[in-house]
Amino acid sequence: MNYSAKMLRDDALKGKTIVVTGGGSGLGKAMSKYFLELGANVAITSRNLEKLKNTAQELETETGGTCLPLQCDVRHYDEVEKMHQAVIDKFGQVDVLLNNAAGNFISPTERLSANAFDTIIDIVLKGTKNCTLAFGKHWIDTKQTNTTVLNIVTTYSWTGSAYVVPSAAAKAGVLAMTRSLAVEWAKYGMRFNAIAPGPFPTKGAWDRLLPGDLKDKFDMAKKVPLKRVGVHQELANLAAYLVSDFSAYVNGEVITIDGGEWLKGAGEFNLLEDIPQNMWNQLEAMIRSKKSKK
Amino acid sequence: MNYSAKMLRDDALKGKTIVVTGGGSGLGKAMSKYFLELGANVAITSRNLEKLKNTAQELETETGGTCLPLQCDVRHYDEVEKMHQAVIDKFGQVDVLLNNAAGNFISPTERLSANAFDTIIDIVLKGTKNCTLAFGKHWIDTKQTNTTVLNIVTTYSWTGSAYVVPSAAAKAGVLAMTRSLAVEWAKYGMRFNAIAPGPFPTKGAWDRLLPGDLKDKFDMAKKVPLKRVGVHQELANLAAYLVSDFSAYVNGEVITIDGGEWLKGAGEFNLLEDIPQNMWNQLEAMIRSKKSKK
Amino acid sequence: MNYSAKMLRDDALKGKTIVVTGGGSGLGKAMSKYFLELGANVAITSRNLEKLKNTAQELETETGGTCLPLQCDVRHYDEVEKMHQAVIDKFGQVDVLLNNAAGNFISPTERLSANAFDTIIDIVLKGTKNCTLAFGKHWIDTKQTNTTVLNIVTTYSWTGSAYVVPSAAAKAGVLAMTRSLAVEWAKYGMRFNAIAPGPFPTKGAWDRLLPGDLKDKFDMAKKVPLKRVGVHQELANLAAYLVSDFSAYVNGEVITIDGGEWLKGAGEFNLLEDIPQNMWNQLEAMIRSKKSKK
Amino acid sequence: MNYSAKMLRDDALKGKTIVVTGGGSGLGKAMSKYFLELGANVAITSRNLEKLKNTAQELETETGGTCLPLQCDVRHYDEVEKMHQAVIDKFGQVDVLLNNAAGNFISPTERLSANAFDTIIDIVLKGTKNCTLAFGKHWIDTKQTNTTVLNIVTTYSWTGSAYVVPSAAAKAGVLAMTRSLAVEWAKYGMRFNAIAPGPFPTKGAWDRLLPGDLKDKFDMAKKVPLKRVGVHQELANLAAYLVSDFSAYVNGEVITIDGGEWLKGAGEFNLLEDIPQNMWNQLEAMIRSKKSKK
Repeated sequence: MNYSAKMLRDDALKGKTIVVTGGGSGLGKAMSKYFLELGANVAITSRNLEKLKNTAQELETETGGTCLPLQCDVRHYDEVEKMHQAVIDKFGQVDVLLNNAAGNFISPTERLSANAFDTIIDIVLKGTKNCTLAFGKHWIDTKQTNTTVLNIVTTYSWTGSAYVVPSAAAKAGVLAMTRSLAVEWAKYGMRFNAIAPGPFPTKGAWDRLLPGDLKDKFDMAKKVPLKRVGVHQELANLAAYLVSDFSAYVNGEVITIDGGEWLKGAGEFNLLEDIPQNMWNQLEAMIRSKKSKK
Repeated sequence: MNYSAKMLRDDALKGKTIVVTGGGSGLGKAMSKYFLELGANVAITSRNLEKLKNTAQELETETGGTCLPLQCDVRHYDEVEKMHQAVIDKFGQVDVLLNNAAGNFISPTERLSANAFDTIIDIVLKGTKNCTLAFGKHWIDTKQTNTTVLNIVTTYSWTGSAYVVPSAAAKAGVLAMTRSLAVEWAKYGMRFNAIAPGPFPTKGAWDRLLPGDLKDKFDMAKKVPLKRVGVHQELANLAAYLVSDFSAYVNGEVITIDGGEWLKGAGEFNLLEDIPQNMWNQLEAMIRSKKSKK
Repeated sequence: MNYSAKMLRDDALKGKTIVVTGGGSGLGKAMSKYFLELGANVAITSRNLEKLKNTAQELETETGGTCLPLQCDVRHYDEVEKMHQAVIDKFGQVDVLLNNAAGNFISPTERLSANAFDTIIDIVLKGTKNCTLAFGKHWIDTKQTNTTVLNIVTTYSWTGSAYVVPSAAAKAGVLAMTRSLAVEWAKYGMRFNAIAPGPFPTKGAWDRLLPGDLKDKFDMAKKVPLKRVGVHQELANLAAYLVSDFSAYVNGEVITIDGGEWLKGAGEFNLLEDIPQNMWNQLEAMIRSKKSKK
Repeated sequence: MNYSAKMLRDDALKGKTIVVTGGGSGLGKAMSKYFLELGANVAITSRNLEKLKNTAQELETETGGTCLPLQCDVRHYDEVEKMHQAVIDKFGQVDVLLNNAAGNFISPTERLSANAFDTIIDIVLKGTKNCTLAFGKHWIDTKQTNTTVLNIVTTYSWTGSAYVVPSAAAKAGVLAMTRSLAVEWAKYGMRFNAIAPGPFPTKGAWDRLLPGDLKDKFDMAKKVPLKRVGVHQELANLAAYLVSDFSAYVNGEVITIDGGEWLKGAGEFNLLEDIPQNMWNQLEAMIRSKKSKK
């Protein structure tokens, strides 16, 4: 199967202006590219202007669309407001906000300082809040409707996870904000949704840092029922659906795209996959004879 | 906005054969029609062959596709096996199973007999199980991969709901089956997902039975943050995505498409929407002065 | 720590009559014993009258309470009604129904017949429904209030699980019924709650059937953050709380008592526990230098 | 029924030292009192030392226990460390941390400044994090085991809620932290759990600020299936269970005690409660005749 096939009809996003925070690389860049291909104007933001400019240049060349690079540290509300104004100045209005900027420390929690923990909360939760508040207030003030916010979260937003606790706390906060405003701000013509991606490796992925044997042990693909990691276009297809008008009745929802990864860990007897097929005959016989109950 | 716009690229389902239980009317019919438009072969089943034949005829005329009507009471495994064989005979193979057949009694639970309760469990839960087991075993035996099962559930699969308790119990069972087999049968090349639709009125909808004043009181659109019910094509777009290869990395997921309906009821302070805007000024002043805490 | 310490004040359940289905052995027996110790009258039911009688005798001797053994196949509504009547005849009324009877096949799903699957649904879901309906209707008819139903489910009621799919589907149905009736029948003075126990080994536990090396591999204690399985009194303490008046404001809730087992599997990065402590220094240094993001 | 009855055996918390943030009033005070009655040493903290001293005095008089008032703004890590040290100085060690300090603005989100939003995140999420980190690191350093953290969250931690969005985001973060550390820090002998209380009115409750007619409209008791708000001792009973050794196998869990409030809003057909009983006869007849389906 070709996992890079593109889903939506041409021009599906024509006329829309989309802001992608953290759009300079990785998944943010992949989504931005597809939005451009579908006819949207896209502004990408991050702290690193040089990188953004290169990405914007590259994406414009590849897609023929218009991509605006804007430096912005989402932790600071005034920078967010300035960024927002720059998008308005360039494109006239914004239709979609994609909160994708994030940070993460993979670490035992006891090794983190209170400040390090705060940094992740500030980038992920307060950053998302800053963008949402600035854009939302503007949409309310100008009575612009048919707008949408898409937030990138994680499956550990609801399960929690060790070793990424600041990110878990912050992303959970983003998810609650998504669901809250999906209800509260619907009256202003805004929709809010989220995506929880499983393993979609990017260049900077942490597991490439592991030495060989650990790399193998922590091979993310093995944790996924489908036995593979995701392809960026698969995420881009889903994101394009959620920012398009085709999903107009999806509101307050978080869609998981992880090949079933989190469920595989969660289900109590899923580990029985390791029982050899040929052992099931005798095992079943024994179990049934005992009428075991749970 | 045109909520009936069609999302996927032409031929997105070309070459796929899809079985839609309960496909003779309502949402099942709407999804079947869109699958046909996207190039799929579709078999529709229900207990009422006459109705099915009319629907198949109508859909073929409208779409130019091939639609096979098959009588089948999904409560009986032998009927399901016969139906499955008939699809194989006609189309050579099946790629997608959409478990949409359902039944529901809207009633105070104390008015239901044990038998009436069983009927809903048999149609919804055992019916879905029968189809899934028959189709799945065949896929395993023939080593056919890249197959997918899509189950239609409800938001009360996880919240529960009064007055539809048999349906709530049965649909919750279907959801658990979805998540379980998404993990267990992934190794055989199958994916499992579900959709939880909110209010998408169909001709037979119960609330049309209500007298005028109650009809107004229970107007479903009012419970939805977006203040409208869903349009069938919106559900069809989502279903088409989930049975297509474009969603190949979505597995074990239930996607809610309800305009935010269930969240609006669930959130503790959502009812404050009824506070007049002009009261918020004084209210906030008072609240802040009291530094109220929760 | 003494995990067998008993929590509630003496006589906490004095004057209550409690019916425990599947009360002849295992966890049902453990809970029944503690209820008797706390002053309740207890009726225990199962299909095996001989076993029930022995258990009742044993429990009466140990606790000095009154324990009534009643044969009942919960799959048959008429047997349930007869059982209910027998309890009324003996104790005058029932205050608490504990739906604990269950069945389970641990098996690859493709090895199950449609009938085998049905058997589990019938015992677990229809059995719970039969008891709930019979007892509930009686409570409504007689206007008896301050009654409560406690259902034993599993953590895979919401996550699903491979290899126990019939049980997963049925228990999910029980959970939805719990939540539905907690709302609907509250007006009749009934409360509904559930417990989702993790690994509490009983004599008939399936994993004792495994050969030595697999037994070790599937050692349930290892999957639990607390690194131990549960002690029966720990479950009994929680169950006693939930059937007592002390939990009068807990309604519609499912309480998990599993040492954190399901969360440990579910959280995406929990597997990093296997990274040796001494490797974190260098790993963190590398990760931070790359400013990896998710 | 006497909802103020006390559940646990005398001396159930004897020998334990418990820190309750936000312990000077409301629910924090109610829980502290019961902990003292059960034999624990309790330290209560908040920003208002005068109030704390009065509360400590009052609680000591009523219970005969020892209650230490400590000023602490949990937003500042250094203040938390100082507070922690003061407890150690007084009682020798800490066994339980109850994160109860909170803040909340009930307000349309568009009326909040970015700063106001931050304030709630700082108190609720960063405050809880600061206490957890300071206490947890100390427990790890000193190898003290059998410790536990209990966090007070809300039902809108997972549903979200309009008009309290900063609180929803922050409490969701606290819940994710609870679940994450329940897994990660279990190896150090710590347990983590949470309680999600429904309406337990306190003196400063916001709805007392409403004018008469709105007060009635937003009467919280009406939203609860049990048709009443909670009594403080009911929450105290549950909290005492969760900080005691009796709950030693409960880990990573959030227990809702709300009378079923959130479920009543969430379930799609729960609103049918408003259909008069005498209308069900004709309604059912019509519905069944139409064989309505969902």
